[in-house]
Amino acid sequence: MEIGSHYLGDRQCAFTVWAPQLKQVAVHFIAPEEKIVPLQQDEQGYWRGTIETDPGALYFYQLDGETDRPDPASNCQPQGVHGPSQVVDHNQFAWMDQDWQNRPLKDYVIYELHVGTFTPEGTFEAIIPRIPELLELGVNAIELMPIAQFPGERNWGYDGTYLYGVQYSYGGVNGLKQLINACHQQGMAVILDTVYNHFGPEGNYIGCYGPYFTQKYKTPWGSAINFDDAYSPIVRNFFIQNALYWFREYHIDALRLDATDHILDHGAKHFLQQLGEEVAVFSQQQGRPFYLTAECDLNDARWVRPCEKGGFGLDAQWNDEFHHALHALLTKEQSGYYVDFGDLQHLAKAYTHNFVYTWNFSKNRQKYHGSDPSDCPPDQFVVFSQNHDQVGNRMLGDRLCHLIPFEAQKLAAATTFLSPSIPLIFMGEEYGETAPFQYFVSHGDPDLVAAVRKGRKEEFAAFHAVGEAPDPQSEETFQRSKLHWEQRYEGEHKILWQFYQTLLRLRREVPALSHADRQCLEVTPMVEKNLLKLRRWHNGSEVFCLMNFHAEAVTVTVTLPPGTWKKLLDSADTQWHGPGNPLPDVVPTERDETVAQQQFNLSPYSVVVYSRL
Amino acid sequence: MEIGSHYLGDRQCAFTVWAPQLKQVAVHFIAPEEKIVPLQQDEQGYWRGTIETDPGALYFYQLDGETDRPDPASNCQPQGVHGPSQVVDHNQFAWMDQDWQNRPLKDYVIYELHVGTFTPEGTFEAIIPRIPELLELGVNAIELMPIAQFPGERNWGYDGTYLYGVQYSYGGVNGLKQLINACHQQGMAVILDTVYNHFGPEGNYIGCYGPYFTQKYKTPWGSAINFDDAYSPIVRNFFIQNALYWFREYHIDALRLDATDHILDHGAKHFLQQLGEEVAVFSQQQGRPFYLTAECDLNDARWVRPCEKGGFGLDAQWNDEFHHALHALLTKEQSGYYVDFGDLQHLAKAYTHNFVYTWNFSKNRQKYHGSDPSDCPPDQFVVFSQNHDQVGNRMLGDRLCHLIPFEAQKLAAATTFLSPSIPLIFMGEEYGETAPFQYFVSHGDPDLVAAVRKGRKEEFAAFHAVGEAPDPQSEETFQRSKLHWEQRYEGEHKILWQFYQTLLRLRREVPALSHADRQCLEVTPMVEKNLLKLRRWHNGSEVFCLMNFHAEAVTVTVTLPPGTWKKLLDSADTQWHGPGNPLPDVVPTERDETVAQQQFNLSPYSVVVYSRL
Repeated sequence: MEIGSHYLGDRQCAFTVWAPQLKQVAVHFIAPEEKIVPLQQDEQGYWRGTIETDPGALYFYQLDGETDRPDPASNCQPQGVHGPSQVVDHNQFAWMDQDWQNRPLKDYVIYELHVGTFTPEGTFEAIIPRIPELLELGVNAIELMPIAQFPGERNWGYDGTYLYGVQYSYGGVNGLKQLINACHQQGMAVILDTVYNHFGPEGNYIGCYGPYFTQKYKTPWGSAINFDDAYSPIVRNFFIQNALYWFREYHIDALRLDATDHILDHGAKHFLQQLGEEVAVFSQQQGRPFYLTAECDLNDARWVRPCEKGGFGLDAQWNDEFHHALHALLTKEQSGYYVDFGDLQHLAKAYTHNFVYTWNFSKNRQKYHGSDPSDCPPDQFVVFSQNHDQVGNRMLGDRLCHLIPFEAQKLAAATTFLSPSIPLIFMGEEYGETAPFQYFVSHGDPDLVAAVRKGRKEEFAAFHAVGEAPDPQSEETFQRSKLHWEQRYEGEHKILWQFYQTLLRLRREVPALSHADRQCLEVTPMVEKNLLKLRRWHNGSEVFCLMNFHAEAVTVTVTLPPGTWKKLLDSADTQWHGPGNPLPDVVPTERDETVAQQQFNLSPYSVVVYSRL
Repeated sequence: MEIGSHYLGDRQCAFTVWAPQLKQVAVHFIAPEEKIVPLQQDEQGYWRGTIETDPGALYFYQLDGETDRPDPASNCQPQGVHGPSQVVDHNQFAWMDQDWQNRPLKDYVIYELHVGTFTPEGTFEAIIPRIPELLELGVNAIELMPIAQFPGERNWGYDGTYLYGVQYSYGGVNGLKQLINACHQQGMAVILDTVYNHFGPEGNYIGCYGPYFTQKYKTPWGSAINFDDAYSPIVRNFFIQNALYWFREYHIDALRLDATDHILDHGAKHFLQQLGEEVAVFSQQQGRPFYLTAECDLNDARWVRPCEKGGFGLDAQWNDEFHHALHALLTKEQSGYYVDFGDLQHLAKAYTHNFVYTWNFSKNRQKYHGSDPSDCPPDQFVVFSQNHDQVGNRMLGDRLCHLIPFEAQKLAAATTFLSPSIPLIFMGEEYGETAPFQYFVSHGDPDLVAAVRKGRKEEFAAFHAVGEAPDPQSEETFQRSKLHWEQRYEGEHKILWQFYQTLLRLRREVPALSHADRQCLEVTPMVEKNLLKLRRWHNGSEVFCLMNFHAEAVTVTVTLPPGTWKKLLDSADTQWHGPGNPLPDVVPTERDETVAQQQFNLSPYSVVVYSRL
């Protein structure tokens, strides 16, 4: 059942809001003219009515004849999280994406961006001119960090309180539609990050309406949402309708579900499974696929397993452990959760099993962690060498380019794009953006601001961070985090960008790299050399790669797969601003086929890709 | 890893206790002589030592040189929950059950009993003389309500605080061993009810030792146990070792895991799955099966599905909804959870699907509930027309014989025993025991007593119970709940007992009834007549049964399966103290095989069973 206000045309708007315990609910219009129109309650506790009004009208719900509150399913909050809700006519927008067909999720190359800091303007509209360059890079899907209406004008988005509202300062309803329209016309998919595990702490009035929360569980961000207790069908519907709303009204192609490990549901059908079922039905009705991807800190294969194997049937999940294995290997960091990583074997396992911890003991967690997802195809996992959390939750918001040399940055990219999983780029990493990505908010409540400052400090303590943390509430922190897009055309930035572009082209064009199959993948860690050998093959196409995770040059003798191999990419090449000493274009150099061994002199952090002739 | 004190022989005893945050732990012996012997801590936080002492020695652990506390894994608490723990030599007992082989769980006929009220003496030993009569009845497994050491001498057992201890007032370590030894020698299996979802509220000092609890979740009985947070491997081990301890030291054949829906574990491998895996390994080592059955209020097929289908792989689970469907149909009660039951269709679904609510909307719960377990064989579910909860959690502890006529009691039994699931009898129901089974405790803490009294009242309010509730703390409540075993030899009691015996004999001897297969089961509810037709078949054996759930006589024309049918049982027969008017011994009575229809005049609440000739 759809909820919120729905403009039906002909000056008629339907209102639906669930408030089972209230005695009266009315719509209190405050513009263009003031009027109060009572709603009628049905037996489920929904209040309804169809009222004469125009798009653009501003309203509150008046609860029990006393208190005015915004619509929890508000489509638009032009005056912020405390202000009135606005009636929106979703039929007004002239969509021109009729030819758009969503591509298979396995072919996605994702670019995660934060609307407020991606451009100087910080709006949806300002993103549009950059779409061609992203496509040129090889990206085919942008992933928007959450854009649900949040308090103030600066926020990562995870404090959204109006899950159906579009952040007004980003350009609101029409701004988002214009961006998606432009993306689809050019062949770019759009993923939206949605937060279904908690509500933001400010401007959250949903508790006035009904039992949306449960006291049975806690989350790190306060009350847990009632996904499994009395009245949970109505609460679950609130979120399911939200997912369908983005697909239907905004033509969003996929959702990234934030921190789904905090969607606490002990019922016999987990909310995520139900969501997946409902989205599958919707996809069938619409004749095109809509995808669900999830972040989850549990390493639980159940998230993406099919329902008949006891899974939730989601399309894909983020694989943070690929990141952790890669990051710890390159940076040697061992604080916080990196204590569980740092060996070449961890990265090798991330390639072969996706998860590194498959019910192994985690020192950081002091418990056994994860399950083995080897029965799930690798393209059900999203991999990255950086993302908003891994950069932004560092005290100073350092990107990988602040932490490791240029050669290692190329290696990090290659490790990610040569994996059979779905790659994700965090905005700016493709050209080694030098601006940090720091944590910023613009809350209106001083107590909340103080709590956020305190919370961040405690988080950094686990990572033994030293020095002064940037103030999350300060506008400077936000400004400091904006990209310098012009860097991308200059010097090493440009070379890195081209290196990314080349990797993505190879991934697209070489069948052995575009085809994700665990059966067609061989990973050989050479631990003593800190070197990884990767073989992938498909339909006669075959590649092998050598990756040197050592900060020094390494000479290694490798037993080659039979045949003759042509070099596709060599990060040490001067073309990529490497140290030179490039590897042979064709191997084996000795034409004695009985000895298919080859000696390679690998530069520090270098990666080389050969393809069978 | 085994925990607690282990007497090794030769006056040596090994002590192991986990207390990661304490600075010192010593064993403080108080008898036969006082001495304090410090333990050594390992890197996991376990304190260990092997100390010279004798079986029977009394000790506390002395924490940080200050506080004396009993052993959380105490084998014996001769002075109650606050007193010292006792060293036990488990090798002293002369087991004589070497010939015992556990039977397949599907063949179990379970008799649930409460040690304190089953006999006047209220001891393990006093149960032994009754074993032959239970075997004669057709029971082959007794299920002991929890016997872990609880506060005082009167308790259902769910307030146990020493999970490795045997209630001393029941006869302690040797009493339990004698009972099990006697059972096994006569072919009776023993199931133990264990509580792994919370610790009893009094005498529970385990929190002094380490993070056994989590604040992430709540249970109705206080702090939730830490099954998925930091240090959970050690907490999980405490419970896993407990299960293995009962199997190893006491020869227990199966566990009934209490209220497993409150074992809150969001990790990638649920505690119950791990427990199942460890018990499977142990069974293999021992060369005989040990079973895990579970109570669970979630109706989640996952509990008993195999791991490869995403399940926990437990052997069986209790099926409360079979009870609710049957109870509401017979009593017409509609208060509390019975509001979701009462139709013949509910009982029919309990036969065909086990669960009635398979993701259907529950009015009582105000949410969708359950999943469909039709892929699991029916003998993975335990059914009953009464149990300790369904009787004892009524305000007055009324049994079914207090609520429905004698004819209906026979029907309730037949409905249970003709089902393809594992049947369970609650002590006394087989002869219509007239004593109630009420809720009783003997806590030492007055605040706790007041809280229990208050809690019970609130629970009864949901069922609109009127009148004065018995005082749980009063000894009279306990005495009132004791069986009058002598009833079983008299009048209608005796007849009911024989009716039970006959049903169990048919279930054993008629292949169509002993073979549990959903594919060989046909259930036809005749709603307008309130009549259920049941067909079961296997390997040429076939039965059909008619069950009249109407309080009045019903005439019905039934299309018979082809063939000639011989009557096996007719509850209306005067042999069973029925009203007479017995049904024909052979049907069809008209020998026109083209019209395989037969008219039956069914007495109120009568049940008839025919078998193919």
